[in-house]
Amino acid sequence: MMKLTISAVTGRARLGVITSLGQTGEKTLEVPGCLLYTRTASAPHLTHDTLQSIAGIPPVTHVSLSTLAEHQEVLEEYKDGIGKFAGLSDTLLYCSITDPVTPNPPGYNTNKTVSVWGSGGRLELTPQKFITLQSALKVDWIQCLSDGEVMAEGGSRKRAKKSVDRSLAFLDECLKLMSENEALKQKVVIGAIEGGDLQEERLRSAQETAKRPVSGFLLDGFQGSSASPEAKLNLISAVTAELPEDKPRFINGIGRPDEVMDCIERGVDVFDSSFPYEVTERGCALCFTHQYQPDPETAGENQRPVFDKEELSNGEKNEESSEDPEIDRSNITSYEICLKEKRFREDFGPLLPGCTCYCCRHHSRAYVHHLLTSKELLAGILLMVHNFQQYFSFFRSVREAMSAGKFHDLKQKIRRRSS
Amino acid sequence: MMKLTISAVTGRARLGVITSLGQTGEKTLEVPGCLLYTRTASAPHLTHDTLQSIAGIPPVTHVSLSTLAEHQEVLEEYKDGIGKFAGLSDTLLYCSITDPVTPNPPGYNTNKTVSVWGSGGRLELTPQKFITLQSALKVDWIQCLSDGEVMAEGGSRKRAKKSVDRSLAFLDECLKLMSENEALKQKVVIGAIEGGDLQEERLRSAQETAKRPVSGFLLDGFQGSSASPEAKLNLISAVTAELPEDKPRFINGIGRPDEVMDCIERGVDVFDSSFPYEVTERGCALCFTHQYQPDPETAGENQRPVFDKEELSNGEKNEESSEDPEIDRSNITSYEICLKEKRFREDFGPLLPGCTCYCCRHHSRAYVHHLLTSKELLAGILLMVHNFQQYFSFFRSVREAMSAGKFHDLKQKIRRRSS
Repeated sequence: MMKLTISAVTGRARLGVITSLGQTGEKTLEVPGCLLYTRTASAPHLTHDTLQSIAGIPPVTHVSLSTLAEHQEVLEEYKDGIGKFAGLSDTLLYCSITDPVTPNPPGYNTNKTVSVWGSGGRLELTPQKFITLQSALKVDWIQCLSDGEVMAEGGSRKRAKKSVDRSLAFLDECLKLMSENEALKQKVVIGAIEGGDLQEERLRSAQETAKRPVSGFLLDGFQGSSASPEAKLNLISAVTAELPEDKPRFINGIGRPDEVMDCIERGVDVFDSSFPYEVTERGCALCFTHQYQPDPETAGENQRPVFDKEELSNGEKNEESSEDPEIDRSNITSYEICLKEKRFREDFGPLLPGCTCYCCRHHSRAYVHHLLTSKELLAGILLMVHNFQQYFSFFRSVREAMSAGKFHDLKQKIRRRSS
Repeated sequence: MMKLTISAVTGRARLGVITSLGQTGEKTLEVPGCLLYTRTASAPHLTHDTLQSIAGIPPVTHVSLSTLAEHQEVLEEYKDGIGKFAGLSDTLLYCSITDPVTPNPPGYNTNKTVSVWGSGGRLELTPQKFITLQSALKVDWIQCLSDGEVMAEGGSRKRAKKSVDRSLAFLDECLKLMSENEALKQKVVIGAIEGGDLQEERLRSAQETAKRPVSGFLLDGFQGSSASPEAKLNLISAVTAELPEDKPRFINGIGRPDEVMDCIERGVDVFDSSFPYEVTERGCALCFTHQYQPDPETAGENQRPVFDKEELSNGEKNEESSEDPEIDRSNITSYEICLKEKRFREDFGPLLPGCTCYCCRHHSRAYVHHLLTSKELLAGILLMVHNFQQYFSFFRSVREAMSAGKFHDLKQKIRRRSS
């Protein structure tokens, strides 16, 4: 059974390691940390070999049920599980219900079923179907079936209560079915905490879920919530305060560095890595400093601070964007540069000075700009390599900062960037 | 200066090697052979590292001016040429005017200019502009500027004559400008043979071009010709008969294995490899036998014959296609299987039994089918790896067959597959 050992606490932020993972129990996941994001069980744009070129790949790969459910028949016939089917060797698998990038549309769950959307449309899952599907998938960590519909503004108190009641009922039924299933009885179950934006329901969900024999908790539904950032963070704080200290807390779909820091500060341990994928899809490269140390001389090779020049040129972006009407700037965060911009046409430096990723070692901003403007798919591959490596190294920096008692220094630095 | 040495001739088909290539003259290209196809100077879907996993990569990489012309300013600023800019290390570069997959629309060339289309629209090239552009690109083999507009049906005799006259004038002017240019005077120039479907003009073009100091010949414009296959082959025969034996003959945009065999038989030496790219883009995998030897025991590891079962299931494809209305079968040749088809859902074998490519070693038809139906971009990467490797090995088989005096046996085998 997996085990979380906390080695340092800064406020509510936890530094630690999850051990005893995998068939032989030799794998570990450091927290705060992230999972390796995949789409239909493959790292976006990357062959297994290209993926291996990335430094710091998380030991746990994240797959989502919504994109895999429709392949149940094939996987049953295949017999060896989704990991082997997708050529993912030697990794632990965590299976969430939804894909953080494309959550399921709300309005379809019932007392008996949870709906997931794949490329072929909607599939209704009962607990029994969920268990049969998990038997075919053969993952290591299972997010239990839950009513985690993203609630639109005005989600009622009644609906929030129902999401908690249903999710607890699904959890009980799934745990029962799993205990009767030889292949699934040893699996790690992650219980989902629901309740929408209602603190009362969230607390009830946390307390009740914590009573069940689950190995960890997913703070579900925060991604699509219409609550204010402050209200969300208060809710997260309130929920984690109800949870046992010795089990990890997961959150999906929250990935912007400042938001990640806010969640860590409130006791969340494990994130997904869909953020660098989304950055990649908009033609951008992560380009931010995540060193708590101000002195570049002592900073790691991979993490030299972004030059001031960079920050300056980022300031010009609004001016630039008027030249590039095709660029949708609405989602671009201050942690990234958009390589579609004309200003990178003749920038022959690496994506991020000092970065040791495959892309930065072999290619320039100008070349990636050229691939993006030519709509060559290689752009996505190169950006994915860079963004994954940067994102994984951001989490390493967070752990190093915590270890050195500098969590707040790093948080301030990350926060400054966002403003 | 590059040198073609013919080691065996079967009818008009030539087996040989082009030597003295590259800066240091140590590179060689075996013929019949193909160039490595790229789009805007990158192998489609592939990082350089993934490309290196493919067996038999041609030593000459094919880039096209139409997709690079608009990047002239950037490349001038960059100074080290397109090869280094695109991260293509250690390869020779051949630059054609157009991309074989997306030929330029006809109707824009004049006595003074040739138009090429990039992502930003049309660019008019004069010989002077062409030379300036080539100075920035720094490739090894240059297809000379020519009026190679693909002629629609009913292209007039007058237009065909004009294409020859213009192309000769462009060739003379470019050769003159290159002789005056320190960086370009040593480059290998490939002269284009034009003349549309008119044998008289094709012969004149061949004879006149052969009088100029070019190192090889491109049989241009056969791809879009509306002439019958037989008329085209007769034209190709007539043209190659006029050309000196000691210089290589190129053709672009002809890549189907049976058509390649027909062209080789008529004295063509070098092809492009856009065919496996087109196969990849339609979700297909090359799956054909190209061994002249009937005995599988003596066949190479990489080239075991396709099983009869395969051939049979190919016969069922029309039935299958009615189930898959999304599959456009109009371009699918008999040398490939379409992995989008439902019949591959539970086919856990490799794309081609016995194939040693990265995809076949790690993944199944069912997995690639799953990637294609999920629209995951990894499908393109895996198919490109397989299709390139298969295509390059097809050319090796052709050379082996010629070396063993079995060219016609192989041709029959390839031809049977097409019927």
